[in-house]
Amino acid sequence: MSKLTHLDEDGAAHMVDVSGKLVTRRSATAEGRILMTAEGLAAITQGDLPKGDAIAAARIAGIMAAKKTGELIPLCHPLGLEAVSIEFHPEDDAIRVVATASLNGKTGVEMEALTAASVALLTLYDMGKALDEGMRIDGIRLIAKTGGKSGDWHARD
Amino acid sequence: MSKLTHLDEDGAAHMVDVSGKLVTRRSATAEGRILMTAEGLAAITQGDLPKGDAIAAARIAGIMAAKKTGELIPLCHPLGLEAVSIEFHPEDDAIRVVATASLNGKTGVEMEALTAASVALLTLYDMGKALDEGMRIDGIRLIAKTGGKSGDWHARD
Amino acid sequence: MSKLTHLDEDGAAHMVDVSGKLVTRRSATAEGRILMTAEGLAAITQGDLPKGDAIAAARIAGIMAAKKTGELIPLCHPLGLEAVSIEFHPEDDAIRVVATASLNGKTGVEMEALTAASVALLTLYDMGKALDEGMRIDGIRLIAKTGGKSGDWHARD
Amino acid sequence: MSKLTHLDEDGAAHMVDVSGKLVTRRSATAEGRILMTAEGLAAITQGDLPKGDAIAAARIAGIMAAKKTGELIPLCHPLGLEAVSIEFHPEDDAIRVVATASLNGKTGVEMEALTAASVALLTLYDMGKALDEGMRIDGIRLIAKTGGKSGDWHARD
Amino acid sequence: MSKLTHLDEDGAAHMVDVSGKLVTRRSATAEGRILMTAEGLAAITQGDLPKGDAIAAARIAGIMAAKKTGELIPLCHPLGLEAVSIEFHPEDDAIRVVATASLNGKTGVEMEALTAASVALLTLYDMGKALDEGMRIDGIRLIAKTGGKSGDWHARD
Amino acid sequence: MSKLTHLDEDGAAHMVDVSGKLVTRRSATAEGRILMTAEGLAAITQGDLPKGDAIAAARIAGIMAAKKTGELIPLCHPLGLEAVSIEFHPEDDAIRVVATASLNGKTGVEMEALTAASVALLTLYDMGKALDEGMRIDGIRLIAKTGGKSGDWHARD
Repeated sequence: MSKLTHLDEDGAAHMVDVSGKLVTRRSATAEGRILMTAEGLAAITQGDLPKGDAIAAARIAGIMAAKKTGELIPLCHPLGLEAVSIEFHPEDDAIRVVATASLNGKTGVEMEALTAASVALLTLYDMGKALDEGMRIDGIRLIAKTGGKSGDWHARD
Repeated sequence: MSKLTHLDEDGAAHMVDVSGKLVTRRSATAEGRILMTAEGLAAITQGDLPKGDAIAAARIAGIMAAKKTGELIPLCHPLGLEAVSIEFHPEDDAIRVVATASLNGKTGVEMEALTAASVALLTLYDMGKALDEGMRIDGIRLIAKTGGKSGDWHARD
Repeated sequence: MSKLTHLDEDGAAHMVDVSGKLVTRRSATAEGRILMTAEGLAAITQGDLPKGDAIAAARIAGIMAAKKTGELIPLCHPLGLEAVSIEFHPEDDAIRVVATASLNGKTGVEMEALTAASVALLTLYDMGKALDEGMRIDGIRLIAKTGGKSGDWHARD
Repeated sequence: MSKLTHLDEDGAAHMVDVSGKLVTRRSATAEGRILMTAEGLAAITQGDLPKGDAIAAARIAGIMAAKKTGELIPLCHPLGLEAVSIEFHPEDDAIRVVATASLNGKTGVEMEALTAASVALLTLYDMGKALDEGMRIDGIRLIAKTGGKSGDWHARD
Repeated sequence: MSKLTHLDEDGAAHMVDVSGKLVTRRSATAEGRILMTAEGLAAITQGDLPKGDAIAAARIAGIMAAKKTGELIPLCHPLGLEAVSIEFHPEDDAIRVVATASLNGKTGVEMEALTAASVALLTLYDMGKALDEGMRIDGIRLIAKTGGKSGDWHARD
Repeated sequence: MSKLTHLDEDGAAHMVDVSGKLVTRRSATAEGRILMTAEGLAAITQGDLPKGDAIAAARIAGIMAAKKTGELIPLCHPLGLEAVSIEFHPEDDAIRVVATASLNGKTGVEMEALTAASVALLTLYDMGKALDEGMRIDGIRLIAKTGGKSGDWHARD
C-alpha cells in the first residue's frame, strides 16, 4: 500500500477527498533564489532597490501562477485564494523571492506559494537570460505554514 | 538604457520582435533536483527504479507545463513545440529531473525546458509533501542548448 | 504611500487579502456598445431582433470570459460565480451589451461583469470586421452593483 | 418558452443563477468505454492489468479535465471540486473508464464526471491511434449521482 | 519495447519528435451522437431544424475545444489550426455531431476533430440534462483524414 | 446568405479556412482610453510619467491577453505572435493605451491588438476602482494594420 496520500492502494493517482476536512484559515510562505552574475543582477534590480518592469513582471507572473496552481499540478484542488503577495530581496549574487498565499479553506496552500515563487523565479530567469546563460534557481522550499489539522510549521533554519 | 532585451529603452516590458530571426532547429535541456528524506524517496520511486503514478504524474505535468510556458512567463513567445521529454534519475537523497524541448522556430526553447523541469519537480513535491515537509528544489538550470544565432552552448560542469 | 488598494506601501502589486471580509450576496452590471455601419449592424442582427450565431457566439464568449476574469486581470481573486447573463440591445448605429454577474462571496464582481461585456463586444467586432474596419467600442462602464460593505451603487445617468 | 434551464424565455443562453440553492454534499459518477483491437488493448494495458504511462497519462488527463469543466462547457459554473478519481477496467475488446467527482456545493458535478471520463477516453485514443485508426468511444453516460434537491439517482442498468 | 509511439522503450510518455516530418495539408473529420428522449430532442432543436442558442453554444464550445486540444490531451502537439467547423444533424432519437479540423502542419489533427466533437456533445448533454438524466454519448470516432505520410483514410462504413 | 465571413450560408459559426492565404508580415495597432478622476489618474501614474506597478501590471496583463486571444474570441485562429508591445499615454482626464501586435502569418492580428488594449484597460480599471467607481473605457478601435491581401490601412483621424 502506498504511503503517498495522492495514490490509492493500487498506486493510482487521485485527487484526495477533502470534503470532511474543516474550513480553517490557512497560509503558506515559500522561498527560492536565483543566482546570477553581478551584471545580470544590476540590470534586473537597477541599483540597490528592486524596481522597474523586470521585478514587476516577475511579481505579476508569480501572482497569476498562484491562481493557476490547480491547473499545473495534477492533483491539487482548485482553490479560492484570498491573498497572494511576493517579495523580492536582492542579495550579493542572487535575488531571493518570498511568496505567501492564504485562504479560508479545507486544504493547505503550500503548492500555491511554491508555484508562485517558482514562476516568479523563472520570469526573472527569462529576463536575464540574454545576459547570463549560467543562472541557477536554488533553494525552493516551504518556510512556514499555518492552519489545518497539522497546525503551524516553520522551517528550522 | 536597459541591458535587458525584454525591456525597451524606458524600462517598459515588451514581447521582443523575433520576426527577423531565422527559423532553425532549436533544442534546450534543463535540469533540477528535489532533495527529500529516504522515506519520501522510497515512496515515490517504489524501490530502485522510478515507476508508478507518482513519476508518471510528474512527467505528464512537466510535459503539459512546457506547452503552457507562453501562458506562464509573461514575455515568452507562444511556440509550436515539436518534442518534449522528461527523465527522472533517482539519486541518494534526491530525484534529478532532466527536461528537453525542441522545435524549428525563430526563438529558443530554454524557458520551455526550464518550465517543464520546474513543474515536474513541483509535482513530485506535491506527491511527497504529506511525508516530508522539509523537501527542497535545487539546481534548476540550463545544461545545454542548440540552434539559433548564438549557436550551441553547454553548461561547464 | 499608495492610495491604490492593489499596491502596498512600496508600490508593489499584491492580491489584496479579503479573508476578513463578509460573505454577502454581490452582483454587478456593466455595459458597453460597439458602433458600426448600418451594413455591419444589419448583418449581425439579421433585422430587428438580435438572433443567429453572431449574437450567440458573442454571448457565449462573454459568459466564458466572465469565468476567466481571475486569469486575465492579474490581481483579481478567483471567484465562484453563481450567475452570469448578457443582453444585446440593437440601437441605431450600435449594439449595446449589458452583462450581469453575481455570487455570494467576499469580494465584488465588477471586473467579471466588465470583462464579460468587453469580450462580448470584442467578439462582435471580430464578427463584423471583414465588413467594417472602422468599428469602435465605447462606454464600457459599471452601471450598478449590490452587496459588500460599500452597499448598493448605481451610475448617475 | 424554452424548457431548457440554460436558456431564458427568449432562447438566450445564460449561466443559471444558483445563489438560492443549498450547499449539500454532491457526487456524480460517469462511465464510457473505448473499443479497440486486441493489439491496441494489449499495448495499452501491457497484459492483464492496466499499468504503465498510457493509463497513468489518461488518468491524469481526466483528473485535470475535471478541473477544466467550467472552462470547456460554456454554461457550467466554476466549482471547487473536493475529490476526483478515475478507474480503468480492461474488458475483452475495450477499456471501460469510470470517473467520480464530488464536492460540497450548490450545483451538481455530473458534467465534471462526464468531462473527466471523456478526456481520459480521448487520451487513450491518442495513445492507441498509431496502432488502430478504427477505435470508437461509446456509452459515455452518468451512472449515479447523489445530493441536491432531486436527491440520489442511479442509471437503471 | 512499447508499440505505442507516445511511450519510449521504457514505457515513459513523451511528446513524440515531429521535427523531421513534412509540412502537408492535413484534415480530419470525427463524429459522435448523443441519444436523448423525444422531449429533450425537441427542446434542443426547437423543431425540424437545429437553431437557437443550444446548438450555437455547442458549436462554439466545440470550436473552442479544438483549439484547447494540446492543453487537454497530454501528448498532443500544440497546433496552429487553420479551419474548424462543426455540423449538427438531428436524427430520430439523437443529434449527430460532425467536426472537421485542418491545417498545414507536421502532424495530424485527428485529436482536434475528436475533441471538438466530444466537447460539442458534452455541451448538448449539459443543455439537456435537466430534462433527461438518461442521455448517452455514443460512437465518437474518426470518419476521415487526409494528408501526412499514411495518406488518406476513411472509415469503412 | 450571410455577409459575415465567420458564418456559413446557414448562419452557422465556423473558424474560417485560411489555409490558402499567403504568409505575409502582418501587424495591427489598436488604441483605447480609460477616463478617470484626477485623483485616480494621479494615483495610477504617480505624477507626470506612467511608472510603478499599476502601469507595469496593466502592460503585462495586456501582453499576456494578446497571447490568449484565440482562447477568448471563439472564431479567432490560434496564432504564433512574434511581437507585442503596449504604450500608456497619460492625458488630462484619461490614460490612453496603444497596443501593437505582429507576426508572419496567414491571418491578421487586429483582434490580438484590440484584446491586448482591452485587457490592459480593464486592469487599469481594476487598479483604480476603489478610488473611482465612475471610470469609463472609451474609443477602443483599430488605428492601423499592415500586411495581408487588403494591404495597409489607417484610421482616418
